[in-house]
Amino acid sequence: MAMSIQQYLAEHREQHLSQLLDFLRIPSVSTSSKHKPDVRKAAEWLADTMKQAGIENVKIMETEGHPVVYGDWLHAPGKPTALVYGHYDVQPAEPLDLWETPPFEPEIRDNKIFARGATDDKAQLYLHIKAVEAYLNAEGSLPVNIKFCFEGEEEIASPNLSPFLEKHREMLKAEMIVISDGPMYSREQPSICIGLRGLCGFEIEVKGPRSDLHSGLYGGGVANPITALIQLVASMRNEDGSIAVEGFYDHVSAPSEAIRKSYEALQDNEQKTADELGVPKLYGEAGYSFMERTTLRPTLELNGILGGYQGEGIKTVLPSSALAKMSCRLVDQQDPDEIFDLIEAHIEKHKPEGVTVQLIRRDRGKPYTIAPDHPYIEAAAKAYEAGFGQKPVFIQSGGSIPIVEVFSRLLNAPVVMLDLGLPGENMHAPNEHFHLENYDKGLITICSFWDEVHSQG
Amino acid sequence: MAMSIQQYLAEHREQHLSQLLDFLRIPSVSTSSKHKPDVRKAAEWLADTMKQAGIENVKIMETEGHPVVYGDWLHAPGKPTALVYGHYDVQPAEPLDLWETPPFEPEIRDNKIFARGATDDKAQLYLHIKAVEAYLNAEGSLPVNIKFCFEGEEEIASPNLSPFLEKHREMLKAEMIVISDGPMYSREQPSICIGLRGLCGFEIEVKGPRSDLHSGLYGGGVANPITALIQLVASMRNEDGSIAVEGFYDHVSAPSEAIRKSYEALQDNEQKTADELGVPKLYGEAGYSFMERTTLRPTLELNGILGGYQGEGIKTVLPSSALAKMSCRLVDQQDPDEIFDLIEAHIEKHKPEGVTVQLIRRDRGKPYTIAPDHPYIEAAAKAYEAGFGQKPVFIQSGGSIPIVEVFSRLLNAPVVMLDLGLPGENMHAPNEHFHLENYDKGLITICSFWDEVHSQG
Repeated sequence: MAMSIQQYLAEHREQHLSQLLDFLRIPSVSTSSKHKPDVRKAAEWLADTMKQAGIENVKIMETEGHPVVYGDWLHAPGKPTALVYGHYDVQPAEPLDLWETPPFEPEIRDNKIFARGATDDKAQLYLHIKAVEAYLNAEGSLPVNIKFCFEGEEEIASPNLSPFLEKHREMLKAEMIVISDGPMYSREQPSICIGLRGLCGFEIEVKGPRSDLHSGLYGGGVANPITALIQLVASMRNEDGSIAVEGFYDHVSAPSEAIRKSYEALQDNEQKTADELGVPKLYGEAGYSFMERTTLRPTLELNGILGGYQGEGIKTVLPSSALAKMSCRLVDQQDPDEIFDLIEAHIEKHKPEGVTVQLIRRDRGKPYTIAPDHPYIEAAAKAYEAGFGQKPVFIQSGGSIPIVEVFSRLLNAPVVMLDLGLPGENMHAPNEHFHLENYDKGLITICSFWDEVHSQG
Repeated sequence: MAMSIQQYLAEHREQHLSQLLDFLRIPSVSTSSKHKPDVRKAAEWLADTMKQAGIENVKIMETEGHPVVYGDWLHAPGKPTALVYGHYDVQPAEPLDLWETPPFEPEIRDNKIFARGATDDKAQLYLHIKAVEAYLNAEGSLPVNIKFCFEGEEEIASPNLSPFLEKHREMLKAEMIVISDGPMYSREQPSICIGLRGLCGFEIEVKGPRSDLHSGLYGGGVANPITALIQLVASMRNEDGSIAVEGFYDHVSAPSEAIRKSYEALQDNEQKTADELGVPKLYGEAGYSFMERTTLRPTLELNGILGGYQGEGIKTVLPSSALAKMSCRLVDQQDPDEIFDLIEAHIEKHKPEGVTVQLIRRDRGKPYTIAPDHPYIEAAAKAYEAGFGQKPVFIQSGGSIPIVEVFSRLLNAPVVMLDLGLPGENMHAPNEHFHLENYDKGLITICSFWDEVHSQG
């Protein structure tokens, strides 16, 4: 990485950070209709910032939902073209009372930036823009061709990205897709993620009586929708913590010996993790370590449940309905639509009496993996070594970026995940933050990666 | 019942109804600290109205919580003294959006008064005041001695009534307690309630990680508090709908043949009930009819559940806690504190791993029964025949008025439940109402009851 680039980044660091805080101030919560104008504002802010960085052909491209921001710089003939993807939308900030400082009033303290979207994904995508700006200002050109595709619907499972990719396949054509949207293994141990879990999100709604009933006058005589719901959902799990939905594991192979060994080498301290999370002990499917359970094994998780009286104290109602919000993380060859069908069949088989049950299919995304010896992964490994001073390990992530698989399939190119976040940065939770040390190391890693790819030819 | 009294009530009907609407306008929600001044206002309104009716010694008596309104008329020497109990507090009105007209803007339509508290218990206690007013204005005296004790905490399980009764035992001394706070069997079939279920209300809270976690990064690795909660609660019920908490039925005898026979005679139409409630079919403990399940059998009911994400769509969190709001209806010799202990033991035995569980004991009340051949019950039967034109049947109610048992025990006197509501009047639910036909028939029933008791000597 050229000295001139390092110097440019150092000289503009304060200004760049201040600009990033402006980005974080925009509450671009994609799931909330109330925040629709803010999502648009974030797209416009991003387009302006890309233009200022020297990126060409910047445009805000409409979809059925929130827009995609595109831009490119394509003046490195004979060199590979990379498509950098990121998302400028963020998760809802609730529960607000658990934030130490307001989620959309970013604050730097303890060398971290606190704000909703700090690590997921605003700072990470911002680093890619600043890397390009540094090249163009310090060197006048980039070592490779780069296209940018930033979407505003990742946190609602990218409903319009697939059609967008299909429609603009030619414009987006690239030799690789690069995404920075997750955490590395630890502060001490950089890593490259070579796999992601898939996802299917759904709701199960149980409806009983037309309106809430007095539990004294009707209790015992009418099926209680909450009871029906919890019995149904409880039936989806075996005593050993495994999932009891018939066929759920049909397309799941045992984890490879290679990845299990690499995990053993990491010597994960499970008691330390339990203490950090504030739980008496870690718990999950028998026969697998914490790291294996959270990255190599599928899950069926309750994300939310509601029904009946929600206020203070007790209200003796027999409620008219109950709702569970659930999601599965998927691995290997599991397909979200097939899993939906299996859950539907399970509901049919265990249908509670005296109520009606509906499965509402929501988000879906397939699992993804890439070989650790792929040339671009090898380039990434060298880049991390340059940025973080040590070789990265290969891991699989438990999270889902459904569009990784979509990109790979629709653009027919490998996806390189250049994660620059750290674990414990409270993605999707109160007090989300991003470490400033990774701001600096991340810029070096990105620039080194482009240099490595350039060298490969 | 004297013609003069009937005439007085007829002449003042419109004025009395208008005054009742004023009472219903006061949002005396006892569970809500926000409404504390309204509860006080209702007590003051009631005291004024009692004084205007000619009731003597009216006073607002302080407790640790909301006050008791007392009054009496004791100028019938040699005749029994009755203590009339009622409550001027009401349930919360939520969910507000399901009310056709606002809960505290009473409206008369279809010959019914719609308002929160209409049937539970404001109209019913109001009828007792108006009956006394009619006697005193038309005849100058009452056929019996009457004391009034109206509380403002029935909907929060009367936490201060027991100490009040103990402290004022002498003042409240009576040969019987009369309570109108429930529905009769049906519009076509008046009834006398000779039994009530007891109640114990509680919350089960499950705590997991210190804060909400990303379900992708931690899912499968950490116990999910909602999953732990629903598995624990699901374990409290057997497949046949009976309750699996060990020892739960230990003090429950089989219903008497007499009451089962009287129920059979009522020929309850279960399909009609299911249709009215909007459920595919009625459901509950095997081996018992709907009426038996809702009045003679104990229950374990979920009144509310909450945990994790509660907004629109899916948010992939692994929540930090989950809470179930539950209550049992108790019968026969079941004791709420014993039941709490059994539930605590069940939780201990089925304690989920990786989380902490807490049982929070809330409301409690014992079951109550009275013999159908008690002289005051026989007087009540004649009074209903006078008011409604047909003999009442004897039933047990599934609801709980814990203070019925408390009154009976602390004042050592039988409780006569002179219910004047009708089923389907949405007690504790949106669009609560009271039928005006029972307003008129109820006044005749109350006056006839005092006449019958007078005749007994």
